[in-house]
Amino acid sequence: MEKIAVFPGSFDPFTIGHESVLQRALPLFDKVIVMLGVNNTKKTLFSVEKRKQMIEDLFDSEPGVEVQIHDGLTIDFCRKVNATHILRGLRTSADFEYERAIAQVNKKMYNNIETIFLLTLPEHTPVNSSIVRDILNHNGDISIFIPKNLDIKKYMGNEND
Amino acid sequence: MEKIAVFPGSFDPFTIGHESVLQRALPLFDKVIVMLGVNNTKKTLFSVEKRKQMIEDLFDSEPGVEVQIHDGLTIDFCRKVNATHILRGLRTSADFEYERAIAQVNKKMYNNIETIFLLTLPEHTPVNSSIVRDILNHNGDISIFIPKNLDIKKYMGNEND
Amino acid sequence: MEKIAVFPGSFDPFTIGHESVLQRALPLFDKVIVMLGVNNTKKTLFSVEKRKQMIEDLFDSEPGVEVQIHDGLTIDFCRKVNATHILRGLRTSADFEYERAIAQVNKKMYNNIETIFLLTLPEHTPVNSSIVRDILNHNGDISIFIPKNLDIKKYMGNEND
Amino acid sequence: MEKIAVFPGSFDPFTIGHESVLQRALPLFDKVIVMLGVNNTKKTLFSVEKRKQMIEDLFDSEPGVEVQIHDGLTIDFCRKVNATHILRGLRTSADFEYERAIAQVNKKMYNNIETIFLLTLPEHTPVNSSIVRDILNHNGDISIFIPKNLDIKKYMGNEND
Amino acid sequence: MEKIAVFPGSFDPFTIGHESVLQRALPLFDKVIVMLGVNNTKKTLFSVEKRKQMIEDLFDSEPGVEVQIHDGLTIDFCRKVNATHILRGLRTSADFEYERAIAQVNKKMYNNIETIFLLTLPEHTPVNSSIVRDILNHNGDISIFIPKNLDIKKYMGNEND
Amino acid sequence: MEKIAVFPGSFDPFTIGHESVLQRALPLFDKVIVMLGVNNTKKTLFSVEKRKQMIEDLFDSEPGVEVQIHDGLTIDFCRKVNATHILRGLRTSADFEYERAIAQVNKKMYNNIETIFLLTLPEHTPVNSSIVRDILNHNGDISIFIPKNLDIKKYMGNEND
Repeated sequence: MEKIAVFPGSFDPFTIGHESVLQRALPLFDKVIVMLGVNNTKKTLFSVEKRKQMIEDLFDSEPGVEVQIHDGLTIDFCRKVNATHILRGLRTSADFEYERAIAQVNKKMYNNIETIFLLTLPEHTPVNSSIVRDILNHNGDISIFIPKNLDIKKYMGNEND
Repeated sequence: MEKIAVFPGSFDPFTIGHESVLQRALPLFDKVIVMLGVNNTKKTLFSVEKRKQMIEDLFDSEPGVEVQIHDGLTIDFCRKVNATHILRGLRTSADFEYERAIAQVNKKMYNNIETIFLLTLPEHTPVNSSIVRDILNHNGDISIFIPKNLDIKKYMGNEND
Repeated sequence: MEKIAVFPGSFDPFTIGHESVLQRALPLFDKVIVMLGVNNTKKTLFSVEKRKQMIEDLFDSEPGVEVQIHDGLTIDFCRKVNATHILRGLRTSADFEYERAIAQVNKKMYNNIETIFLLTLPEHTPVNSSIVRDILNHNGDISIFIPKNLDIKKYMGNEND
Repeated sequence: MEKIAVFPGSFDPFTIGHESVLQRALPLFDKVIVMLGVNNTKKTLFSVEKRKQMIEDLFDSEPGVEVQIHDGLTIDFCRKVNATHILRGLRTSADFEYERAIAQVNKKMYNNIETIFLLTLPEHTPVNSSIVRDILNHNGDISIFIPKNLDIKKYMGNEND
Repeated sequence: MEKIAVFPGSFDPFTIGHESVLQRALPLFDKVIVMLGVNNTKKTLFSVEKRKQMIEDLFDSEPGVEVQIHDGLTIDFCRKVNATHILRGLRTSADFEYERAIAQVNKKMYNNIETIFLLTLPEHTPVNSSIVRDILNHNGDISIFIPKNLDIKKYMGNEND
Repeated sequence: MEKIAVFPGSFDPFTIGHESVLQRALPLFDKVIVMLGVNNTKKTLFSVEKRKQMIEDLFDSEPGVEVQIHDGLTIDFCRKVNATHILRGLRTSADFEYERAIAQVNKKMYNNIETIFLLTLPEHTPVNSSIVRDILNHNGDISIFIPKNLDIKKYMGNEND
């Protein structure tokens, strides 16, 4: 059976921590599908299309990575794409308690799915999208918190263009 | 002295975890009053009246359970109904730190009140109202996360009827 | 049905935090039995008999408090004394995770028993028996960490007398 | 080199816990600058000017304390005022994980800055601005949660005057 | 490349939680080697040979599972057996902090190894070997905390026979 | 008034994390005294004299650092050396809860002392003396977990020479 993992998140933006987790997970799976969740009640800094493009650009030489936008429950997406696993990174024990609830509820709803966790690297532990957005909003330099090959300016700017 | 517990919450909706905590606490008290707190800044999925009806229907054969709506501080409600205790369920250590601050401040403000905590059952630990609302909002099946006798559809639908 | 709580611990020694939890729990129960657990692999500072005497002296005007020594599982003791509840105090989230495992396993083994938790007061939160023993071992002054009416010197000294 | 600490926060309002942390930190520094962060997306109970006045009034006999309003990143403010340290109080382990991420990111962005942490006193541990605001919003008595010399009514009232 | 996971532990005894984690991890790997660590400073309830036999008996119809005894560092074992991954189960946030330190140090020492984590099921969360040993030591019934097919009595008894 | 900090610990051995915390704390104090606590019930890997020599060698060009051995309570040592502060590093939230209890009890016993905390750097977070000892005991390479200038072999070997 093909091993397909879904890597769900809002990735607003995709950080150096996300990149590392995804890279290190690739050898375990035939395919990893990055699922960009749509949450209409939360204002994002980057539009979901820009975020899709951002991640696709980063992994365009990686045939095992796909990016899809999904408006709905993660497990419904997993069913649709025949996923066997959900992939998540863990940074802190606060993360852990939040992720555990989500993962255990997902398994209750769809017993065929298994969530597996990778740790972020120690040096990436303090980095999260919310802090990165805050720095961006104040015109700070985020280059050390995002993937080396990510030219963030390319995805910013006039959302209405 | 009559032992009266207040079980405060927003219960949006009342989950299988809430039901279990309330049921197991009943033998300790002469009366448990479920206090539906009104929080005008938070949008709820079920109106406070629907939530009141939901809990009353579930416990209508239980004379020791009352449901009341309260707009104000929990301790002011406790004073009004001559409560001796506040009842809360604990799932995780994140819960614990949040609950501890509230309970210790309540005791500072009204020394006669004591908060007692019951654990959720292990299988209910991942269940919380926020996850249940999220599933409901995406038309998922929540039946395993709410009380067996709770017909959730009865309380949904047109809030303006 | 009589409401009987078991308050298990090693109480080596009984601290100001233990006293406060026990005092505040009394109104909920017809009887609270302090169960001094015997753990032959752990060296204690006070012999179990001295600890029994210490707690009995403190609560000798309180007819609802009993002290018993037990070598075995807490739930076996609960069965023997027809306890309906186990009582525990919670100080920190580290406490919480430890207590949750014990309480949920106890309930799995004996479904009739319910563990209820009270918080320590904020000012008692840093106090635990292990720190108190450490201070005693270095001849420090522990009077502010133990009950006001506890004359600790009375229970110290030659264990072989 | 002058030792200058920045004590950043929204202080909405300034609690007894903030006061204690600031007082106990003063001997370590030549100057402590309370930095009132402006966050335009969060509605505050007290305007930033009222909060500035509140803290200045409390520390007007303390020449080592300054209060400034800043709209931007904390480290940009630190650079501007030549700060050597950031000062923060820690109450709980939930606090700790949040603060650790912020402090480690700040150090990554500006290696010359060091964040130092002081503990709140045990009796102040449950007190936080959010609980105090909630009590104020329901006309409860907050006097025991704020500095003794803080006449909170003076800073309330018509923001549009 | 063959995907080989090492599942290290003392498994004293192997619980229902260990069994579930191992079972659910099998589809991800070509082989999972249960590594029984030898720790000469910790007294165990079951000898390491009995524990090896116990796990081999449980998984004797599962060709992808091997059991080996190792006295040394986990990463040295991983190098020896050409492991690509370390497998661990996570129950609580206390677990998480402990596991994170070990896993991050392991990765620092041997960059080719990746630790992946699976959650225990909610109903297995309170179960750990230390509690099970405590119950066994007091002649309690542990059958609900160990694998259904594990006849624990077979592995107990005279270690000196 | 002279600002004197005590940095207490067993430092068995002194890690790269300890070194970083001590270095970064130096600018805040006139003197930092590393206090090697003697704990006769815990077997150490390095004798207390070797540990003293190890730290003194590391900081011999740093006049603001002293190393002393103390058998007793930390606060008694603080009184003896007229310390104004206790210095501790924080890695994780598990650390935090442990340290908070110690620091708050110390302050209760000696109100003039203030404990200040520095964070370890993200890359040092997983490193602790217990893991380092474990690696040493299995002849692993610990060079990346200890200070660059620390020649650990110099302090090992025959304790009875």
